[in-house]
Amino acid sequence: MTTVGILGAGQLGRMLALAGYPLGMRFRFFDPASDSPAGLLAEQIKADYVDTVALGQFADGLDVVTYEFENVSVDAVRYLERSVSVYPPSIALEKGQDRFNEKTFFRDLGIPTAEFSLETETISFPSVLKTRCMGYDGKGQAVLSSQEDIHTEAVSELLVRQDLIVEEFIRFDRELSLISARNKAGEIVFYSLTENQHKDGILRLSIVNGQVSSQLQKQAEEYAKAVMSALNYVGVLAIEFFEKDGQLLANEMAPRVHNSGHWTIDGAVTSQFENHLRAVTDAPLGSTSPLGMCAMVNLIGIIPDMKSILKIDGAHLHLYDKAPRPKRKLGHITFVEKDLETLERKLDQLKEIYDI
Amino acid sequence: MTTVGILGAGQLGRMLALAGYPLGMRFRFFDPASDSPAGLLAEQIKADYVDTVALGQFADGLDVVTYEFENVSVDAVRYLERSVSVYPPSIALEKGQDRFNEKTFFRDLGIPTAEFSLETETISFPSVLKTRCMGYDGKGQAVLSSQEDIHTEAVSELLVRQDLIVEEFIRFDRELSLISARNKAGEIVFYSLTENQHKDGILRLSIVNGQVSSQLQKQAEEYAKAVMSALNYVGVLAIEFFEKDGQLLANEMAPRVHNSGHWTIDGAVTSQFENHLRAVTDAPLGSTSPLGMCAMVNLIGIIPDMKSILKIDGAHLHLYDKAPRPKRKLGHITFVEKDLETLERKLDQLKEIYDI
Repeated sequence: MTTVGILGAGQLGRMLALAGYPLGMRFRFFDPASDSPAGLLAEQIKADYVDTVALGQFADGLDVVTYEFENVSVDAVRYLERSVSVYPPSIALEKGQDRFNEKTFFRDLGIPTAEFSLETETISFPSVLKTRCMGYDGKGQAVLSSQEDIHTEAVSELLVRQDLIVEEFIRFDRELSLISARNKAGEIVFYSLTENQHKDGILRLSIVNGQVSSQLQKQAEEYAKAVMSALNYVGVLAIEFFEKDGQLLANEMAPRVHNSGHWTIDGAVTSQFENHLRAVTDAPLGSTSPLGMCAMVNLIGIIPDMKSILKIDGAHLHLYDKAPRPKRKLGHITFVEKDLETLERKLDQLKEIYDI
Repeated sequence: MTTVGILGAGQLGRMLALAGYPLGMRFRFFDPASDSPAGLLAEQIKADYVDTVALGQFADGLDVVTYEFENVSVDAVRYLERSVSVYPPSIALEKGQDRFNEKTFFRDLGIPTAEFSLETETISFPSVLKTRCMGYDGKGQAVLSSQEDIHTEAVSELLVRQDLIVEEFIRFDRELSLISARNKAGEIVFYSLTENQHKDGILRLSIVNGQVSSQLQKQAEEYAKAVMSALNYVGVLAIEFFEKDGQLLANEMAPRVHNSGHWTIDGAVTSQFENHLRAVTDAPLGSTSPLGMCAMVNLIGIIPDMKSILKIDGAHLHLYDKAPRPKRKLGHITFVEKDLETLERKLDQLKEIYDI
């Protein structure tokens, strides 16, 4: 019997539990929130991440601890590491939590990135001003297309903060992400590069449709391997890239299962969730082969009529049991089809009831 | 928000919950047992099936009730039906709980069965003596190959009981089962006929490998449709057949998700568990198309080393979190492969660590 502790009881934790129960695992979550998506499926300790008594109670009897979001408190992880194994390693959290450290880390490994600097005064245009920490889903960012944009409200709000990084604005051809997994034995597996489309800064659509060259796939895998080896990484790692003129520029990484890998639940032999759990419990990793052409559509803010979704042949619905709220990720729908034409037709059917 | 109540918190209930959470459903189980496979995943009312106070507490706020085993108390179901919808309908339970009524029902619908009789004195050889009720996994059965067998201990034990049925012993070519689903709107879907191999009366191996003619598939579907229409059935129904000389003889039916349909979790577009939940919640049914050549191996009594299982490329492991005990179903492993040769090779790999 393996009991896995998970920091964070959101939808990623929920999908980890759903993937881990069939492996005979048990779960315990730590999250201050009530009505959390994972809290219905397993025990949940409701406390703040600075509550060391609660953290001790959480850790008691666990075989391993992992986390579902990259902004988890490094202090909490360090505290837990004293009594139980925590994967991915806290060093990965630290690298990922600060955009400047993260990009410097990429650069030091020879992985191309957009130009970046801490000198916000030397902004060239167009560029992107970002908070160094705690940004996600497009929050904490502002694009500066000209000198005038410095005076906009969004930029002013950011400029009052000290922890800013300025990055070259990349007019990319595509956004791609690579989900990889590495276990304690050093075994590494990679999923197919996923093409991601955002809307209002939030991932809306992920596609795996064979439109990525094997060279690009190989290049991304080499970068991911360099990152994981450098960190002695254990678990699933997501790296987001910009593709421009056939080259990859690393944008950011997340030391966790990732929204752009949700298609793997229905669309790969082994899901990212199962492989993350296999990795952190020192088990062999499973095949990442895709089962077809895949598309994953995020349900943001609203959930269309469920029966209308299920009426679409082959629609795999995943709801997170969260109350609808604007910009909130409430669920996703995956299609796995044998050819592109069928995949497009399914997406068209979905568009009749949901604005992709 | 749909909350589904399930009578029985064993592995079938567990797999129903795992299939239903992604649809946004919540679950409440009713089972007298502690440490039940489903009890960790959801609320469980622990009480006896005759405890009407507990049944009332269970039913409170549920949208629908279903059950995971066919020997559930009809009285309990009738009691619940006063306050909440229960599917499959209790008439299906009654038909299935008594082998004589069940076979008479098949015969009345024109579905061929082995010869059967309540007159145990008129036994011809070889034949099978069975208890009318409560038999499963080969329990409550004895084969009589000659007059002498009447005097064996197994037969003597059965003969002291009043509720016996004697059936013609069929020297079948194959055992096949059909999993079907029907929703409230009358929509019906069928999975591919599954070939089943038993060991000591317990299902050991289920195979879907394209070795069933479309005529046989069509014949089975017609029989299942007749059964479901006659019962105004809602939910998943399993019918077990003997195949002999290209003909199907119905052996028994189960008004629930079925062990021989476990391959559908990994091997079909929509699993039997999801389709059962779609059916009982009045949703459209999902595609039953197989994703390849499938084999499901039951883990009975022991679980081989988990890492050795996971090392087999493409092995989908499903453990029920039950303590090992002889003849106990502890889990299953499914393979989904593109051709028969690969499927056979995977089974050979598994045989190195587990006696199929």
